[in-house]
Amino acid sequence: MVLTVVKAEIRIVLKHGVADPEGENTRKALELLGFKGVKSVKTIKVFEMELDMGAEEARAACEEMCRKLLANPVIQTYTVELK
Amino acid sequence: MVLTVVKAEIRIVLKHGVADPEGENTRKALELLGFKGVKSVKTIKVFEMELDMGAEEARAACEEMCRKLLANPVIQTYTVELK
Repeated sequence: MVLTVVKAEIRIVLKHGVADPEGENTRKALELLGFKGVKSVKTIKVFEMELDMGAEEARAACEEMCRKLLANPVIQTYTVELK
Repeated sequence: MVLTVVKAEIRIVLKHGVADPEGENTRKALELLGFKGVKSVKTIKVFEMELDMGAEEARAACEEMCRKLLANPVIQTYTVELK
């Protein structure tokens, strides 16, 4: 049996309007270090996975993983990209 | 004075061979939830920034930010992509 390995990139992004304290604190720290002109900093979480299955199955599995574990639907959205 | 706003995406990736406990624990949790075929999970940190400067200046600034604050050169590498 031959199995393909699919690489998937899952991005977990905060919804628009949700506070991003880590990003905001990073912006402040950069300002204190003397970096000018940094208007905003947002943080994004990325999971890069290797999946032992076909592409269609992998996409469906990744979306289910986001719903069940990786993302909090109240404050986060997710995108799945196969490579 | 007209200033352009440049969007930059900075990716902080663990170097090859460095342990990624968060990724490994995510893989285990997915397995416990019944997801089959997940061979590996790696975590990547992404900073998305808006910078009030030209493109060349923005790229240089982002690389300096990585060296000074965002990345740990012992275990992490970084890439800067302007949008």
